[in-house]
Amino acid sequence: MPASPSGHGTSRTRSWWGWGYADSHPDDAECVAMGALLPGTLARPLPIPRVADLAIARPGVTPPSSLAHLVTTDPEARAAHAMGKAYRDIIRALRGRPGRVPDLVARPTDDREVADLLDWAGGQGVAVIPFGGGSSVVGGVEYRGDTHRAVLSLDLTSMDRVLEIDTVSRSARVQAGALGPVLEEQVRPHGLTLRHFPQSFEFSTLGGWLATRAGGHYATGRTHIDDFVQSLRVVTPAGSSTSLRLPASGAGPSPDRLFLGSEGALGVITEAWMRLQERPRYKASASVAFADLPRALEAVRVIAQSDLSPANCRLLDPGEALLSGASQDGSSVLVLGFESATGRVDDRLANALELARAHGGRGGAPTANGGADSADHDAPADAAVNAWRSAFLRMPYLRDGLARMGAVVDTFETAATWDRIPALIDAVRTEVGSAALKATGHPATVNCRLTHVYPDGAAPYFTVAAAGRPGEELGIWDDIKAAASDVLHRHRATITHHHAVGRDHRPGYDLQRPEPFALALRAAKDALDPHHILNPGVLID
Amino acid sequence: MPASPSGHGTSRTRSWWGWGYADSHPDDAECVAMGALLPGTLARPLPIPRVADLAIARPGVTPPSSLAHLVTTDPEARAAHAMGKAYRDIIRALRGRPGRVPDLVARPTDDREVADLLDWAGGQGVAVIPFGGGSSVVGGVEYRGDTHRAVLSLDLTSMDRVLEIDTVSRSARVQAGALGPVLEEQVRPHGLTLRHFPQSFEFSTLGGWLATRAGGHYATGRTHIDDFVQSLRVVTPAGSSTSLRLPASGAGPSPDRLFLGSEGALGVITEAWMRLQERPRYKASASVAFADLPRALEAVRVIAQSDLSPANCRLLDPGEALLSGASQDGSSVLVLGFESATGRVDDRLANALELARAHGGRGGAPTANGGADSADHDAPADAAVNAWRSAFLRMPYLRDGLARMGAVVDTFETAATWDRIPALIDAVRTEVGSAALKATGHPATVNCRLTHVYPDGAAPYFTVAAAGRPGEELGIWDDIKAAASDVLHRHRATITHHHAVGRDHRPGYDLQRPEPFALALRAAKDALDPHHILNPGVLID
Repeated sequence: MPASPSGHGTSRTRSWWGWGYADSHPDDAECVAMGALLPGTLARPLPIPRVADLAIARPGVTPPSSLAHLVTTDPEARAAHAMGKAYRDIIRALRGRPGRVPDLVARPTDDREVADLLDWAGGQGVAVIPFGGGSSVVGGVEYRGDTHRAVLSLDLTSMDRVLEIDTVSRSARVQAGALGPVLEEQVRPHGLTLRHFPQSFEFSTLGGWLATRAGGHYATGRTHIDDFVQSLRVVTPAGSSTSLRLPASGAGPSPDRLFLGSEGALGVITEAWMRLQERPRYKASASVAFADLPRALEAVRVIAQSDLSPANCRLLDPGEALLSGASQDGSSVLVLGFESATGRVDDRLANALELARAHGGRGGAPTANGGADSADHDAPADAAVNAWRSAFLRMPYLRDGLARMGAVVDTFETAATWDRIPALIDAVRTEVGSAALKATGHPATVNCRLTHVYPDGAAPYFTVAAAGRPGEELGIWDDIKAAASDVLHRHRATITHHHAVGRDHRPGYDLQRPEPFALALRAAKDALDPHHILNPGVLID
Repeated sequence: MPASPSGHGTSRTRSWWGWGYADSHPDDAECVAMGALLPGTLARPLPIPRVADLAIARPGVTPPSSLAHLVTTDPEARAAHAMGKAYRDIIRALRGRPGRVPDLVARPTDDREVADLLDWAGGQGVAVIPFGGGSSVVGGVEYRGDTHRAVLSLDLTSMDRVLEIDTVSRSARVQAGALGPVLEEQVRPHGLTLRHFPQSFEFSTLGGWLATRAGGHYATGRTHIDDFVQSLRVVTPAGSSTSLRLPASGAGPSPDRLFLGSEGALGVITEAWMRLQERPRYKASASVAFADLPRALEAVRVIAQSDLSPANCRLLDPGEALLSGASQDGSSVLVLGFESATGRVDDRLANALELARAHGGRGGAPTANGGADSADHDAPADAAVNAWRSAFLRMPYLRDGLARMGAVVDTFETAATWDRIPALIDAVRTEVGSAALKATGHPATVNCRLTHVYPDGAAPYFTVAAAGRPGEELGIWDDIKAAASDVLHRHRATITHHHAVGRDHRPGYDLQRPEPFALALRAAKDALDPHHILNPGVLID
């Protein structure tokens, strides 16, 4: 039974400073209870920040009358568009120093208005930051620097309609500003789903997913949104680009692949034809415990290299398993799930369990409290799974609560080929744990789960938590981030599997990116954004 | 039982003017017999052309002594590197007018030598045409124009080794000049396969596949070589680009996707880490006949939209089915094949046959003479399938024989979403048939098969054959090609699904490509190839 998307269509207020809805934040008592789990945190939570307490400058620019109706200078709106939702952003808000607040927030309703806003901004030297759901955890939607006369946050969420549905080819033309639930609501009556369920599902948009190469479809194989794109429409300062809607093509380098992952630096993605799927009708899942993480990794690799194609195949290390309630005995836990719209999947689950047991896995009962890294609103109406899903969706709120208690909490993710995975996980645990201890003076927890697996590798996701030092959170965060970036680079793992580069990952990205590709990308930027107004500092200086 | 790759390691001589091996060409009697099938063709075949009869100019440039050992000016080598293997190329050879023959042919053995050759050519204004197996059917490996002082054909086939194998992650680092059989021979001892089997398998290289986004893996899903790339090494005039070897990443636009499909215009792909697969052990196949092509298309669509993932799912229209011996009664024939390295596939075949029968399919016995569009050297050792595979590999030789008889024979391929497929196939048949009749004065055969199918669309492959008019073949070919390009454009189908753009598809490609992407691509070209020496005229002017 599909759950109704939380809050869409309601009058619930989004938090300007923290994750999600303002009324979903943990209260002070909850914060204190969480803080007690991390010795050295504050006795009382930092107060929830208020926009009225921020020193927000008057807008440095006035839009022309022809565009005035699209633009607001309301302080609440400007503050809510000043940053994303990384730990770093939460701290800046809690400390009342959000950084550069945009002068203007524009909400265009069609491509023409987007183009007009870009034209005006280009002529005025105004930086334009495309903004979808604002859930970036990598500094992707803020302005840093001082080379632009003013900053305009381009909020696409007024462009949120599904414009066409082709049920024969199972695809839809969707405006980029549609939040996850808004998109799914419009395709559900046709029996279809995009089935893209990142943790930010409620608070991120199709355009944001495309611009950042989001992950979230499946735990194996085609998880990135890239693979579900038939065509893109992108408004650039040099003109609008509409690619031909195709199932596949071999005509030159893919135009769409240049804009996928371009993070707003080359143009504003305004709509896309997306591949949809029939809603799954058959599901089966189970969890398996492993006494030994290396053997669990072997089991996952063998399953990923089979042709069983689990929709879910998440491995939780002992710390993750403990926190999520999947295990209390120090085991690692593998959560397996299969689904299909056309036929039963029990056999595939049985085959996968057999492979897991051959590598030391124990158990295999239907999962009660799993580790699915997805906000899938169509998961079976199993009470325990629903409970876990709620917890998963609640995690970022809890992080904000811990931040209010002075804790340092960060997550980062990567991917590497299987030959490097065991040593990479060990090194991250050791080195990032040491860096966090050194930076905070407190012991740190470093947990790991595999969120996505491939025949040739896996994507480990790490969570670091420690008590911090009041007032020094950003420096501590920088030290931990630098240590993480360094260990990923030395182990030749990507700086990001699905969180994107933004501004926070630029140093690691610059090390990873081949220099000739950087030359080509800069040249493309010069050609498409000659005044360099689009999301300055992201990907390209 | 794996067949041994035909001819690799033997001393068989490649044809300088036609497909494949010189000793595989049909003899004059076979040509006459084939010509009899197309009324209006010549009574006797045109003679096989000889290099000695060509007016090959002396090289217009001399390489420096440091590079002289890599370079040949041998007329046979120069003639063999003057063109690809399109019908258009065969005619030009038969008429003794191959166009601009390269001044030099270089065979570098490592990246340093490739870079040195590019440096020298850039300084001298010498055009460089990267050359793999030379099997281009779109004018991808020749020089047209007169703005360069000389032309160097850069033959990569001396770089043909598998440099590393990672059996844990199932991947290999392979030099770009490895022909299909040469690559497979080196990974087979590890139980692995790249499993990329285009029709040109014996006569095309990994680098060529990557530079042209070749298709050939599977009939469904991930067929393009793109999806099997972990990382690329590309030597450009602006420096060498090596991407990080990863199973997946979300770090900015994919560097590899800019070079995939760049057709030698941005750099020379010299090696790649490729995803391999375990060799399949379980196979099952069957063919189904349909009285009605539209219902057959429906059946194929439903199967493509299931999660059954056939490795082979080729639909032959009545003409194709007749020619391939799959049917004599005017039926369309669907050939289904499943394979797995890990488990039996009979159930999946049974489920697919059930779907086919629900849409009017008849039969379903194990296939005797199918339509697999693949040169898979590991297909089961079934005599009929082997016979078909031989016929498939022989087709380009037969085309050359028909060309010697004055026939016009061309193939072209495309892809479109399912909603457009039936009308597209009808229109191509009608309009290209009319254009061929008008151009040749003879009735033309236009046959169609679906070589690849996707949940959201399909890739139709067309073959046009008619008697021509001696001496006017190229003009006739141009007229037919223009008609085909026009109908594809009007039906919003891609100008190529896997044959690439080259020079022959430039008009259709230019119509299809969004202008802002063209701007970005030209800017990237200027940055990476500032002297514009790399494959001039391909993709970008």
